[in-house]
Amino acid sequence: MSPDQPFATVAILGLGAMGGSLARALSGLASGPTVVGWSPIEDERNAATRQGAVSSAPPEWQEAVSGADLVVVAAPLQATCHLMAGLAEATSSETTLSDVASLKAPVERAVEGGGARARWVGSHPMTGSHESGFSASRADLYRGAKVWCVAHADADSRVARLHAFWKALGARPASIDADDHDRLMAVASHLPQLVSNVLANVMAQHVSPDQLGPGGTDMTRLSASGPELWRDILEHASPELTGGLRALADEARHVADLLEAGDLDAIEELMRRTKLWSSTS
Amino acid sequence: MSPDQPFATVAILGLGAMGGSLARALSGLASGPTVVGWSPIEDERNAATRQGAVSSAPPEWQEAVSGADLVVVAAPLQATCHLMAGLAEATSSETTLSDVASLKAPVERAVEGGGARARWVGSHPMTGSHESGFSASRADLYRGAKVWCVAHADADSRVARLHAFWKALGARPASIDADDHDRLMAVASHLPQLVSNVLANVMAQHVSPDQLGPGGTDMTRLSASGPELWRDILEHASPELTGGLRALADEARHVADLLEAGDLDAIEELMRRTKLWSSTS
Repeated sequence: MSPDQPFATVAILGLGAMGGSLARALSGLASGPTVVGWSPIEDERNAATRQGAVSSAPPEWQEAVSGADLVVVAAPLQATCHLMAGLAEATSSETTLSDVASLKAPVERAVEGGGARARWVGSHPMTGSHESGFSASRADLYRGAKVWCVAHADADSRVARLHAFWKALGARPASIDADDHDRLMAVASHLPQLVSNVLANVMAQHVSPDQLGPGGTDMTRLSASGPELWRDILEHASPELTGGLRALADEARHVADLLEAGDLDAIEELMRRTKLWSSTS
Repeated sequence: MSPDQPFATVAILGLGAMGGSLARALSGLASGPTVVGWSPIEDERNAATRQGAVSSAPPEWQEAVSGADLVVVAAPLQATCHLMAGLAEATSSETTLSDVASLKAPVERAVEGGGARARWVGSHPMTGSHESGFSASRADLYRGAKVWCVAHADADSRVARLHAFWKALGARPASIDADDHDRLMAVASHLPQLVSNVLANVMAQHVSPDQLGPGGTDMTRLSASGPELWRDILEHASPELTGGLRALADEARHVADLLEAGDLDAIEELMRRTKLWSSTS
């Protein structure tokens, strides 16, 4: 194993947009690992094998993970938690476990319950598609993407290997604590998602999508995201998310008041502030 | 003049992202019109001439419009209204007047005040950039864009020529009444703009732009739009816009309540509704 290819065999459980893209990216590496895939959907197992994204895709996940140095679960949040509990038992102490779920504390709890806390390094790649399934996967999905890595202190040596794993795909790994991560996501990801739904719901009473310009289209794109996927995530809704929604409601009402009062100085000041923020990094 | 090139000489007043792109597009046509430009900014006049976007760019707009079959004002809203009043006097009854401002009723009033109501066909291309200036212009900005065309009944024969003008650039013209247009824009364009500002302002208290994934980035992109440009537009804020902001505030608060009550069925139902809407046209 070269330092930039830290795992010889990688099993990917779930071959949708996230897992399928990971399989394609790994299989596209010059001297990449052996990639074994699994999906509960037979068509996706067949498509991934046929298109060379995986070298094999057995019908049972237990078979797919046997002999893997790294197992990455790429499933919706609840399914990820269920699989993690099973994986703790089904894999040896050599196997590193990871996942790409967009919340980390619930997965961490599942891993801990399965007794595999020292073998897990959770990942959350800040990328994705509002389309789903293997047909929405693409080899460059992770290129340039920030990937949050979450692990127990006990998993120390595995963290460096997970970082190397993501770097080999052109991603930008960074470590964070599970609770800090989930609080950050509530504001950085879940809040914009629900605001897009709320905005689309208001706009839907007056306009159709084809009447929108690029701005209106940008602002409602997320409103097409998968309801089931988000239901899983929002079951763990944090006070930061509901607090953000209430702050947004107050601010939207305030802007309406300002417009009605003709206080354009205040509106311009708000726009200057956000323009400045958006140019920071 | 071939039917798809209905004007022999076109003057463009304003050479920013919108006007500069229009000049580039027209000058790039196989047998396009003579394009004369004007900008209050000398650097933009020079850049547009040097880069072949216009055949000439005199320092005074009166000179630029002399002999033009079509004058397109591509300036912020207030400047557009001012120029329109002057253009009514400075041009002959043969000259067709247009503009690309994103509200049409204020421009229509200015044209009417100048006595040129039968010569004006206002345009609103549903495209643009959150960057500004000639350096942000590009020849394909209007390709595929919907362009709302607004005119008095008296301007009938000119409307068809304006439609042909936009079609030659690959845009999709459609006629609409000025007030209907402005009401539509309040919801389709101004509401998403302000929601992006409000959302960014809330998020700015917790995260920086580089902590966002593609969704959060989409939802805050508009928050970098030009405050001065929008101030002009929001001076004409309609009840539809303030009503939309209040409806959004109510809905955001309601979603926070649902999350706190754990009513995920209702959240999923909202997401299904907006997903369905976004797939309609």
